[in-house]
Amino acid sequence: MNVAILGYGTVGSGVYEVLHMNHSYIAKCAGNELNVKYVLDLRDFPGQPVEKVLTHDFNDILNDPDVDIVAEVMGGEHPAYEFSKQAILAGKAVCTSNKELVSKHGAELLALAKENNTNYFFEASVGGGIPIIRPINRSLTADDILEIRSIINGTTNYILTRMRDERLEFDEALKEAQENGFAERNPAADIEGLDAARKTAILASLVNQTQVECDDIYTEGITKISAVDIAYASRMKAKIKLISLIRRIDGKTYACVAPLMLNKRCQLYNVDGVFNAVMVKGNAVGDLMFYGSGAGKLPTASAVVGDIVEAAKHRHINVVTIWEPEILKLANIDELVYSFFVRIPAAQAEKAKERMRIDVIVDAGIPGEFAFVTEPMSGSEFKERSGGLDIISRIRSELDR
Amino acid sequence: MNVAILGYGTVGSGVYEVLHMNHSYIAKCAGNELNVKYVLDLRDFPGQPVEKVLTHDFNDILNDPDVDIVAEVMGGEHPAYEFSKQAILAGKAVCTSNKELVSKHGAELLALAKENNTNYFFEASVGGGIPIIRPINRSLTADDILEIRSIINGTTNYILTRMRDERLEFDEALKEAQENGFAERNPAADIEGLDAARKTAILASLVNQTQVECDDIYTEGITKISAVDIAYASRMKAKIKLISLIRRIDGKTYACVAPLMLNKRCQLYNVDGVFNAVMVKGNAVGDLMFYGSGAGKLPTASAVVGDIVEAAKHRHINVVTIWEPEILKLANIDELVYSFFVRIPAAQAEKAKERMRIDVIVDAGIPGEFAFVTEPMSGSEFKERSGGLDIISRIRSELDR
Repeated sequence: MNVAILGYGTVGSGVYEVLHMNHSYIAKCAGNELNVKYVLDLRDFPGQPVEKVLTHDFNDILNDPDVDIVAEVMGGEHPAYEFSKQAILAGKAVCTSNKELVSKHGAELLALAKENNTNYFFEASVGGGIPIIRPINRSLTADDILEIRSIINGTTNYILTRMRDERLEFDEALKEAQENGFAERNPAADIEGLDAARKTAILASLVNQTQVECDDIYTEGITKISAVDIAYASRMKAKIKLISLIRRIDGKTYACVAPLMLNKRCQLYNVDGVFNAVMVKGNAVGDLMFYGSGAGKLPTASAVVGDIVEAAKHRHINVVTIWEPEILKLANIDELVYSFFVRIPAAQAEKAKERMRIDVIVDAGIPGEFAFVTEPMSGSEFKERSGGLDIISRIRSELDR
Repeated sequence: MNVAILGYGTVGSGVYEVLHMNHSYIAKCAGNELNVKYVLDLRDFPGQPVEKVLTHDFNDILNDPDVDIVAEVMGGEHPAYEFSKQAILAGKAVCTSNKELVSKHGAELLALAKENNTNYFFEASVGGGIPIIRPINRSLTADDILEIRSIINGTTNYILTRMRDERLEFDEALKEAQENGFAERNPAADIEGLDAARKTAILASLVNQTQVECDDIYTEGITKISAVDIAYASRMKAKIKLISLIRRIDGKTYACVAPLMLNKRCQLYNVDGVFNAVMVKGNAVGDLMFYGSGAGKLPTASAVVGDIVEAAKHRHINVVTIWEPEILKLANIDELVYSFFVRIPAAQAEKAKERMRIDVIVDAGIPGEFAFVTEPMSGSEFKERSGGLDIISRIRSELDR
């Protein structure tokens, strides 16, 4: 069987490398040799082995009936959407790492794949190399999934880990992450939470079997987290993590991405650096966690190639994934109950004590400040009680768990 | 579609419960309603709902062409083997939690299922509710799997956790585990490591795609671990865990089950109580961990029912799992390199210092003893150097990692 790779960037070159490196084992699993017939990229790679299979024209791939499987690892919405659609219409299977495309057009491309007796697979779109999409679709089918809590952005987890371990400010940690290749030159999508929100939309769509829009997901990034916040967290033996939450209760679905203080009883507390983890709570299976490299060339390529093998085993047989196009209306996350960690000017301490239902006062030796953790309350109650306080920082916390 | 459940014990009653509790969601995933038509058990359950579908005769199930899927959750080799074989020969899919049967007859039953265009699934046989079999077979197909390290026996992990947290002796912790239902009245298979060895054999067979015999796996249980060993471990900020190891290197496969001292940099350090976790290292994906409830009624039933759904989606379509019957010869684990934690009488301290390549001397305030951790060395070297020492306790350790 023949594979075409769209895009020879980090992931694409990884897919090329993995298909060569593990060629014979992959052939055994797939029941067929898998050869890279084309690599599509705008650039040339003179002198590199990939040169022999390089094309600048997608039509070479589309019109070649010998291409069975297309790995779309170019990223972005366009032209990835058009290429994927045309490939599926031509009966080719498409495997992708493109979370933007999957979160926006997953339902449509899955339906199209079903109509054309082929497959659209996207294991690499969430959690990099961690198997999570297929386990949800193919293994956890006996469970009503009540909650998914995850760390699904490696860049922000690296930054928060370095801020804590080395007492860095956000800007310093971001700069270090960029220097080490863990953050892009334009890091907005990561640090503002958009990347995590896209992945959350994909997971929420799968567990609800219908479309959850990324734009409907309440999203806070980590740009406002300061070294002082981290110092308070450390004082409480807690860590601050950017957590994606999906909670399904009483027929409602909540979804959000926001920084959260976690104590060490939570398994996600131990997920540091660029690692990702996805915790799934089912009504039968209880708590599960899937942990691994959430990004990086070879781990992400491993997931794409795993999909390619699955596509090879299901040539012209659609593997059903239920994801209807109807948009699910998410519930208001202000209904969710948290403890809240809050910093205010010391002058407002008495006012806060009167109004905030304080559970613990936290002293991290920061002059001029009063900091505390509230008793558990809904976001609405918090907003009502905290009106009039000059909040320096407010972070949801699960320290009572 | 109709399901028959063989055995109405803990897992069987869980399968019955999950199929009813999540009936409509399961029907959606399976593309068909799944009804329990028979439950086979020797006992009667007067007044219970299960009574209506109860039978004492396996032939009722075997000869009913309306039974599509059989859940074999009776445990033990016989008659589970005969029942499974007959069901497969009759074209029925069989889903099981029976690690003894799978480790001994998996290759044969898979081949038989292939010949008869049906399936033999066994997700629940390793790690209870944790999806691990299908991820290995269906997701990690792009990777050469270099290592699997796991905690796959909940009973022993519970005992070791309680010994550490409450400073109990082994016998006390075992008694407590039995009282709480986490250990069987005859706990030998768990505490001697046999249960973990069976699961290790299954995992090792899958990653090698050929038979690994349970009896060939070097197995040490936890019966010799004492409160003093745990005290030394705590002194070194380490934990002792019963670890199943599969390592594949230079064309050789090593497999063993033995207590291991782990430091907190290892993700398995945080796996406590009855929880299980399986770490998989692939040459592309790097380190992954799958964590969750390794036993218990509903978690194990979740895995069995997940298999039932997969069987329903693949009625008369064999999902290929490569597991050849040829027996793999395992390499000698004495070639593996560890640090070794050792306790000897104080009188032999000088002798040990001369001979043992000591890395760290450990003082936990135990009179009359000398304890240390060696530099990394092979098991053979350790045996050679330690000959003549009156070893009180010797535990492999990975404290240098």
